Amino acid sequence: MKKLGMLMAGACVFVLAQAALAGEASPSDPKAIEAAFDAGVSSQDQLDWLKQMASAPNQVGSPHDKANAEFTLAQFTAWGWDARIETFSVLYPTPLEERLELVGPAPFTANLTEPPIAGDATSARQAGGLPAYLAFGGDGDVTAPLIYVNYGMPADYAALQRLGLDVKGKIVIVRYGAGWRGLKPKLAFEQGAVGCILYSDPADDGYGAGDAYPKGAFRPERGLQRGSVMDMPVAPGDPLTPGVGAVEGAPRIPLSQAKTILRIPAVPISHGDARHFLAGLAGPVAPKAWRGALPITYHVGGKGASAHLVVRSDWSQKPLYDVIAVMKGARAPDQWVVRGNHRDGWVFGAEDPLSGQTALMEEAKALGALAKGGWRPARTIVYASWDGEEAGLLGSTEWAEAHAPELQAKAVAYINTDGNNRGFLDAQASYSLRRLVDEAAADVTDPETGASVRARALAQIQVEALAPDASPELKARAKIAADGGALPTGDLGSGSDYSPFVQHLGIAAINLGFGDEGQSGGVYHSAYDTFEHYDRFGDPGFAYGVALARTSGRLVLRAADADLSPLQFGNLAAAVTAQVEEVRKLVTTQREHAAAVNRLLDRKAFALAADPTLPSGPPDREDAGPTLDFTLLDAAVLRLKKSARAYDAAAAGPIRPASAERVDAILQGVEQSLTDPRGLPGRPWYRHLISAPGLLTGYGAKTLPGVREAIEGRRWAEAADYIGRTAAALDAVSAKLDEAAAILKR
Amino acid sequence: MKKLGMLMAGACVFVLAQAALAGEASPSDPKAIEAAFDAGVSSQDQLDWLKQMASAPNQVGSPHDKANAEFTLAQFTAWGWDARIETFSVLYPTPLEERLELVGPAPFTANLTEPPIAGDATSARQAGGLPAYLAFGGDGDVTAPLIYVNYGMPADYAALQRLGLDVKGKIVIVRYGAGWRGLKPKLAFEQGAVGCILYSDPADDGYGAGDAYPKGAFRPERGLQRGSVMDMPVAPGDPLTPGVGAVEGAPRIPLSQAKTILRIPAVPISHGDARHFLAGLAGPVAPKAWRGALPITYHVGGKGASAHLVVRSDWSQKPLYDVIAVMKGARAPDQWVVRGNHRDGWVFGAEDPLSGQTALMEEAKALGALAKGGWRPARTIVYASWDGEEAGLLGSTEWAEAHAPELQAKAVAYINTDGNNRGFLDAQASYSLRRLVDEAAADVTDPETGASVRARALAQIQVEALAPDASPELKARAKIAADGGALPTGDLGSGSDYSPFVQHLGIAAINLGFGDEGQSGGVYHSAYDTFEHYDRFGDPGFAYGVALARTSGRLVLRAADADLSPLQFGNLAAAVTAQVEEVRKLVTTQREHAAAVNRLLDRKAFALAADPTLPSGPPDREDAGPTLDFTLLDAAVLRLKKSARAYDAAAAGPIRPASAERVDAILQGVEQSLTDPRGLPGRPWYRHLISAPGLLTGYGAKTLPGVREAIEGRRWAEAADYIGRTAAALDAVSAKLDEAAAILKR
Repeated sequence: MKKLGMLMAGACVFVLAQAALAGEASPSDPKAIEAAFDAGVSSQDQLDWLKQMASAPNQVGSPHDKANAEFTLAQFTAWGWDARIETFSVLYPTPLEERLELVGPAPFTANLTEPPIAGDATSARQAGGLPAYLAFGGDGDVTAPLIYVNYGMPADYAALQRLGLDVKGKIVIVRYGAGWRGLKPKLAFEQGAVGCILYSDPADDGYGAGDAYPKGAFRPERGLQRGSVMDMPVAPGDPLTPGVGAVEGAPRIPLSQAKTILRIPAVPISHGDARHFLAGLAGPVAPKAWRGALPITYHVGGKGASAHLVVRSDWSQKPLYDVIAVMKGARAPDQWVVRGNHRDGWVFGAEDPLSGQTALMEEAKALGALAKGGWRPARTIVYASWDGEEAGLLGSTEWAEAHAPELQAKAVAYINTDGNNRGFLDAQASYSLRRLVDEAAADVTDPETGASVRARALAQIQVEALAPDASPELKARAKIAADGGALPTGDLGSGSDYSPFVQHLGIAAINLGFGDEGQSGGVYHSAYDTFEHYDRFGDPGFAYGVALARTSGRLVLRAADADLSPLQFGNLAAAVTAQVEEVRKLVTTQREHAAAVNRLLDRKAFALAADPTLPSGPPDREDAGPTLDFTLLDAAVLRLKKSARAYDAAAAGPIRPASAERVDAILQGVEQSLTDPRGLPGRPWYRHLISAPGLLTGYGAKTLPGVREAIEGRRWAEAADYIGRTAAALDAVSAKLDEAAAILKR
Repeated sequence: MKKLGMLMAGACVFVLAQAALAGEASPSDPKAIEAAFDAGVSSQDQLDWLKQMASAPNQVGSPHDKANAEFTLAQFTAWGWDARIETFSVLYPTPLEERLELVGPAPFTANLTEPPIAGDATSARQAGGLPAYLAFGGDGDVTAPLIYVNYGMPADYAALQRLGLDVKGKIVIVRYGAGWRGLKPKLAFEQGAVGCILYSDPADDGYGAGDAYPKGAFRPERGLQRGSVMDMPVAPGDPLTPGVGAVEGAPRIPLSQAKTILRIPAVPISHGDARHFLAGLAGPVAPKAWRGALPITYHVGGKGASAHLVVRSDWSQKPLYDVIAVMKGARAPDQWVVRGNHRDGWVFGAEDPLSGQTALMEEAKALGALAKGGWRPARTIVYASWDGEEAGLLGSTEWAEAHAPELQAKAVAYINTDGNNRGFLDAQASYSLRRLVDEAAADVTDPETGASVRARALAQIQVEALAPDASPELKARAKIAADGGALPTGDLGSGSDYSPFVQHLGIAAINLGFGDEGQSGGVYHSAYDTFEHYDRFGDPGFAYGVALARTSGRLVLRAADADLSPLQFGNLAAAVTAQVEEVRKLVTTQREHAAAVNRLLDRKAFALAADPTLPSGPPDREDAGPTLDFTLLDAAVLRLKKSARAYDAAAAGPIRPASAERVDAILQGVEQSLTDPRGLPGRPWYRHLISAPGLLTGYGAKTLPGVREAIEGRRWAEAADYIGRTAAALDAVSAKLDEAAAILKR
């Protein structure tokens, strides 16, 4: 905080602080601005807005989604922002027909609906909302044997193969968890499945996790998880307008050529429905790790029950309403700090996304009050209320694509939130912005403990690392935390609206929220994610709505008012150093694993270790692969470490305004230097070479993705190619840092 | 095998081999004797005997237990053994009254019985058998709040304390697993509980593990686990005759002075019964690791339901019938190889223990046939069919105590089996006998794969070590296995009849059996452990009954016929070296953990990391303790390594018969050198200083128990005391080895 605080633009502080704090603050004290901002943040507003905005289904195309956009626009305007609605027209399928039946000795038809819950008035107002639905699943009418594939991740298919089974021509039933939803039907399709049922096992978010709603917060017997199964690890956004904004008149490809639409029908069901299907399965008993909390013996199936699945959707375009509000910067109007949260939910969307949306609105209101008091940010602030995030980051992606050149030229940072809960600050960020996050977190008070939200997060890590089964990685992080280290901040994968900014455009980004104590997860994407549920279990009293607004608002304020863009590069250099060691070790680990597996295959050890009365085969022989030459990356990392150290040291000293302006101009595109215009293998939309959602993790981040995924896939030429590209990207950053440092040192 | 085989006594081989193999074998080839033995082992015998012996309840005091003893005696006699029944009179409680009720809004009375199972005729013949019962639980009639304590192990009580709860004045409900049954009510009593309910969670051995009986092998809804809750980690055997054989007229202490009887009432129930009790609990949701597979949200309780528990037992003495059969040695009749398995079950006891008992009988029959063919063992062989093992190793302990001086003077080794199953050889042994086990395992063919049972066990370890979550210890063992290492052999804890021999008398012992593929575990100690169940799920066709008889019979043959006692000491030296490093590291680990916990307490990190809306307190401050001086042990280990190397080298050379005799005499008491007549702290019955059942593990072995448990309990003076005692014991072994080596080298 110290350093960034000192660098705040002082020009407009005086009037503001006078007005907002009635003379209590020193006009030159940036803390006074933040204090005034904090004072402008209330929980009552958020509670009122949430109640109203979550009162009816608000998915894309619903009347209430549009009403919420108009309400948000009116509020922004009333708070003094230059606000508008930007409309896009996107492919957004909605269900025309859905049917799922168990065929066999004990036939059963899945309910596919969520009945109202006693004590939750909202849950009875589902008219116009979506039933059980997976957006961007394929149309189809299939009857086929049913087979259970656990979480449906690659390791599960490897286990299935060793059981002598496959999913070819079958309908898979998969449980939610362990990887992103959309990967499950995609992998099933790639393995030859003709249909996919996703269900919520009570072990994961139902009675096995805690008391079911309404007694407790967790998913009740008939609760189900909607969601998108668009192939977002290839590209999010409107499948008909890849890479360009889906404005009216934009060129569109035919539906048949869309690459990110699932090819097989898929449907989500509750555990109340799933129990019938799973109980009907024969075949081997499921491996231990595959068993959930239903009171049955889990079998893999492949024989026994068959299922009949019908999905037919309306594939018409629907309107998207992004609300965009601008507060022009006084000193550097062409440097933008962009802040966003989506507004659309699957049904009522109280927690996801409106709890984050209302915090964002609260920030905008408080910033508006500062501005009315005379303050003006040094840089331009842009607030965005995105539509259509749920179906595939539609609103943010189309807007980012529509405004790509301007954003790449002007955006300093993108700051994202989504659903919020009670608990601990959880942040992911580009490395250059991590110090900004750390310093802000040190200055926000946790409502439950009175400590800083940073101190709580650091305490949590250290306590968790005491557990006997704590991972070496957690222990290492705890040691750093114990030694006074910074707020632990994760890598940016996907799953919310920061993705197009950081991964497609190369704009440094932050994603943050509170959680771990609130219990909204049990009703995630269900019709029970209501105001009533959130007020009881998510963030009663909205204390963490206030904490979130104060944290993200602080990030906006500091990024907008810092003399010099609030970037730091030591974190990047340190992280990439560690990542190169990881991928180097990965090559060795894979080689050792291959040698061990192949040796045991040669000795027929798998046959000796197997129970011959059970179906079990040996694993496939593994490719040990060649050694990889990391010289280019090693050299680039060495150079980056030196350049980053020099720049950070220079930026810590006193800075003349003229130098700041020149350095900001040089560093405006610095995160873009980490992207490659050719993108990642097979998915050119993703251009960032340091962090991307994994092709086989979906939301989870992979660092050095071009290199790492090539190694994991044993594609050695590709790995060597991306070693070179990544080294070149790092060298480009080093060159900019050297240039900037030279200016600062003059 | 090679070496021991060469050392076999040749005197009687000729006649035997002629007779048994009709002239096929060379008269001087000990392999011919083993081949003849193998040929004498049949599965049909075992099947017939099992069917008969498991046809009625056969617990201590039942008519069928006596009938089985008489049947066994008759068989041994018919096979040419000098056999007799030795009778003891022991305290053996049986239930007079048992009642368990849920008190509260949804009252329920536990069934406490196991209904017959369709297709299992035996299960309908329970008349005269024990109902739900925990032998040596206390009498009592208590009504108290019910509280769930997971597995009831020390870590569970620590977690409970952090939830702000305790068990004082309450009845605990505990699930089976994670530690020996008898520890659970003992720890509950020590924590202040007034009653204890043990239940079988379906996650552990019911439908969560596999299909329930009769569809599959696993514990059905009403299946329950009987067992003993005698305080066996303090001492097994008749509680009224501690340390002496419970023969007629032996001095007996009054019941009130018996130290190993539980002080509170306890009862075992099925998950069908348990569900009602657990569903009635209120209070906090149970920690994640505490939740089983019942379709409920597990709560800890402490409020909500109360229970009413009544147990009243008949505390009279009952007769024990040990069948003892002797085949006198030709060369060294005063050197005994003792082989045993118990015969009593909880109900029908098909798998536990009769599957092992019938294998033992098969060995005795085959050895009898060899003897009828003219063969005579060099050393005396003693076969024992123990009674009353289930209630507390009664038959073996009383016999060992009654014959202690003779056994300590004569027994070379004790070889134990218990229930057997299909699968992999699993052995625990004194270090000096591990090479014997390894060599025998290399020469027994696995019936499923045709490889040696040793090769299969080694393959299993290497395959398991490939799992991503394999422990470093398993990986290390796999590496040894891959490099051609010996059969992995565990340390002797307790849970079967080897305990009095090795831990009380200091006689080197082996315990072995097959398992991992058979599925008898799901009906362990229930009325469904029947011939029908075993024949379907335990060892269909009794192929592993044959493999067990061939393995343990081979051990007996080789131990009885070896020129020199088959002892080797390099394994002991290597193991103790590693154990000293472990306990040294334990001191460091504990100190580091204490420092970490105490530092976090100082910083109030536990409060910051906790959800204030949930009950949770910080852990207790920990005692870091002083450094411990391991000098004495280090020196003793160094000496032992040298002495063991010298002895093993000398024993590998050619040996004159006169030297063999003198060395056998010297080494007769060598395992006893590892005992201390004062015993382990608080439990003088346990005298072995290298391996004992842990006071807080029950069956599981603790190595260097005097030192290790003192460190774990932060009793530093005691730790130092046992460092000295253990060092002295090792020095005594070294001295004997030096003496023996000197003779061999002459």
